Amino acid sequence: MSRPADSAVSAASAVSAVRTYIEQHRAAFLDDLAEWLRIPSVSAEPGHASDVRRSADWLAAKLRETGFPTVEVWRTPGAPAVYAQWPAADPDAPVVLVYGHHDVQPAAREDGWETEPFEPVVRGNRLHARGAADDKGQVFFHTLGVRAHLAATGRTAPAVTLKLLVEGEEESGSPHFRALVEEHAERLAVDAVIVSDTGMWSEDTPTVCTGMRGLAECEIRLYGPDQDIHSGSFGGAVPNPATAVARLVAALHDDHARVAVPGFYDGVLELTDRERALFAELPFDEQRWLRTAGSHAAHGEAGHTTLERVWARPTAEVNGIGGGYQGPGSKTIIPADAMVKLSFRLVAGQDPDQVEKAVRAWAAQQVPPGIRCEITFGAATRPCLTPLDHPALQSVVRAMGRAFDRPVRYTREGGSGPAADLQDVLGAPVLFLGISVPSDGWHAPNEKVEIDLLLKGVETSAYLWDDLALHWRHGP
Amino acid sequence: MSRPADSAVSAASAVSAVRTYIEQHRAAFLDDLAEWLRIPSVSAEPGHASDVRRSADWLAAKLRETGFPTVEVWRTPGAPAVYAQWPAADPDAPVVLVYGHHDVQPAAREDGWETEPFEPVVRGNRLHARGAADDKGQVFFHTLGVRAHLAATGRTAPAVTLKLLVEGEEESGSPHFRALVEEHAERLAVDAVIVSDTGMWSEDTPTVCTGMRGLAECEIRLYGPDQDIHSGSFGGAVPNPATAVARLVAALHDDHARVAVPGFYDGVLELTDRERALFAELPFDEQRWLRTAGSHAAHGEAGHTTLERVWARPTAEVNGIGGGYQGPGSKTIIPADAMVKLSFRLVAGQDPDQVEKAVRAWAAQQVPPGIRCEITFGAATRPCLTPLDHPALQSVVRAMGRAFDRPVRYTREGGSGPAADLQDVLGAPVLFLGISVPSDGWHAPNEKVEIDLLLKGVETSAYLWDDLALHWRHGP
Repeated sequence: MSRPADSAVSAASAVSAVRTYIEQHRAAFLDDLAEWLRIPSVSAEPGHASDVRRSADWLAAKLRETGFPTVEVWRTPGAPAVYAQWPAADPDAPVVLVYGHHDVQPAAREDGWETEPFEPVVRGNRLHARGAADDKGQVFFHTLGVRAHLAATGRTAPAVTLKLLVEGEEESGSPHFRALVEEHAERLAVDAVIVSDTGMWSEDTPTVCTGMRGLAECEIRLYGPDQDIHSGSFGGAVPNPATAVARLVAALHDDHARVAVPGFYDGVLELTDRERALFAELPFDEQRWLRTAGSHAAHGEAGHTTLERVWARPTAEVNGIGGGYQGPGSKTIIPADAMVKLSFRLVAGQDPDQVEKAVRAWAAQQVPPGIRCEITFGAATRPCLTPLDHPALQSVVRAMGRAFDRPVRYTREGGSGPAADLQDVLGAPVLFLGISVPSDGWHAPNEKVEIDLLLKGVETSAYLWDDLALHWRHGP
Repeated sequence: MSRPADSAVSAASAVSAVRTYIEQHRAAFLDDLAEWLRIPSVSAEPGHASDVRRSADWLAAKLRETGFPTVEVWRTPGAPAVYAQWPAADPDAPVVLVYGHHDVQPAAREDGWETEPFEPVVRGNRLHARGAADDKGQVFFHTLGVRAHLAATGRTAPAVTLKLLVEGEEESGSPHFRALVEEHAERLAVDAVIVSDTGMWSEDTPTVCTGMRGLAECEIRLYGPDQDIHSGSFGGAVPNPATAVARLVAALHDDHARVAVPGFYDGVLELTDRERALFAELPFDEQRWLRTAGSHAAHGEAGHTTLERVWARPTAEVNGIGGGYQGPGSKTIIPADAMVKLSFRLVAGQDPDQVEKAVRAWAAQQVPPGIRCEITFGAATRPCLTPLDHPALQSVVRAMGRAFDRPVRYTREGGSGPAADLQDVLGAPVLFLGISVPSDGWHAPNEKVEIDLLLKGVETSAYLWDDLALHWRHGP
């Protein structure tokens, strides 16, 4: 899990050259990043549409300045993406696509920010701003990374053919991303995708993530009486949709907290003993994790640890439930309708379309006579997973190990992202290289990035292209 | 069940005199009622507090005008009640208290009203306005009723000592009603209470109600994580309060739709065979009843008919449920909390305090580790029931039979009212005289009263006092 012994000397000299280069350029790098972070590229807010476009243009200019010979802003029906390409000199070198996004979550001072979210502030080792970690900082470390790579190796082009795709709608569910990738599939053809939009275990424990869960979401709405009716006049004698929705949700899990929808687990790729052992090696403090969650108990599928539950097991969660009177006091009605919003996290081997079918069939069976059921599914996200022994994954592990000078361990990500679309459309494995830590506050007030970890990201990026070119070749 | 044969002639002349009087005064009566209905006396909305007071003052003035020698507005810590008294000439005449309320349910045009809820409109035989049936119309028919009684009999005082108590907080659960009755218990001492805040079977089938269900209400709030948390990062591994609240609700009933709270049925007075037979005699069309409910199936406790379920069986209903994200689209969170509002209808023999204890004990047992539970009970209403052979009940049956010229049958009321407090505090039987029909839309948009039934209410009231004085005497 660290540098190979046979290249120890050249590796040591490469490390030294890379570190020197980064040290020389760190101030300008942080200044540039701060300039980007000042652009409030909030994709969810229509009023910020021009800022999202400005953010794309800013990045495109910066990538040209970095040296990418091809840089384009790709329009979509929503916010634009930025594409850049830098061919390797060797036509047999691996072709790699770096994925990230330049849009950010909404943020306002009054949400609890100690400083203006779009006015970057350095406090100690921390750079605070919306997007510092998610995801501008982690996109941006590749710009200094590739320059450090060139400087340290004396190359004029990267050791791999490097492509970058930085989308502008990730925080809005990437509604046009798959179509964009399909449209440009030929130009985007790659051997591997490197996603820099995740995190690592902790400051002390560098990790690479090997997969993300997928996501299927639905709203189930149950209709009872044509309007709210008096619970005195009718109570006890007609079906109540709020009771029905509760019984539906109660039937979603069995007594072992397994999802009770028939067929839900079909195809699930079970964890191997080695993967379970690797998860168990991580310095996981469940009590501390619960404090991070603000939760007061661990609870989940029987027979699995907490990490297995959040990373490698499919789940069904209630995101919202509602029906009838929810104001102060009481109102003695049988409500006309009630609804529940469910999200299903999916793991490798599960097919969102099959899950949707299974949920629809199950729900239809749960609904009692006199209650009408409407189910709406949103766009799904597929799960993705790269095998532990994949050569490109091992390159990421080695590059990261060299940058951090520590053993690199393995994680997965419980959340979901558009990475799976890249895997699907491009037929390439997806690898995750992220240096964010759990305290960075993604989607929360006072988001930050740890500056020394950000520079370790630069360093990892600087080592990665050489390592990939050394251990892997282009082609099927 | 109709007029006694020995008084057929005098009864016929009384009927003629009453009907003539009512016909002469009907226009003014309806105009007056419309004026009262224009006052939006919504007790649940603090912004309408002055309207509720105005409604009390309006009624007090009208009762003075009607001839009641004593009329008082009784303040409470909430909305005021109106009290009026008119002594019979005969000190041995029965003493009767009429109960009703002058506050109304909230109503707004945008709830689905075809016209302004506080701008009464006559369409055909129907008077539409919030409060037309529940309960201003049914309080108000007694004013013309007593005048018709006096005119037809040539009396200057009613045949019974008539007391009226019209409260202003019924739609808010009558929080100060019991204390008010206790405070004035001596002045309110009566032989029987006539509640005019219920309905009858249908336009064609006059009925008297012999009892009401009681009511206990609570809100159960379950707390999970300290704030909403990401369902990708934590989903499947911590308890979800929305799931927990759904499982709690699902556990509320067994598979036979019986309430599964241990001890809930303790003390329940089971229906006699005669009562079941009387219920079964009613021309009950379940499909039509379902259309009235706007419901699409009958469903309830196994082993009981629909009428038994709504009138004579205790129930548990969800009035509202809520937690997490309920807006458009999706939000992948585990919510911080979720709640359910439950109401329990109680029947004779059940004690609200015991029910509260049983529900608290049951809920505490359902809540999983890591979830905190808070339960708040509102003020409860006791059930009440008058024996079928009570002489005052038989007077109501005869008066109604005379007004409607049809046999009068027996019902019960599934809803709840403060009548039980009157029964408790005053030690008097409670009788129900109501002319509202199921289509009147209590608590719903476009509430109305059938004008010809309203006038039959006037007529019943006009006959009742004579019949009571003839068949019953004051005293224990």
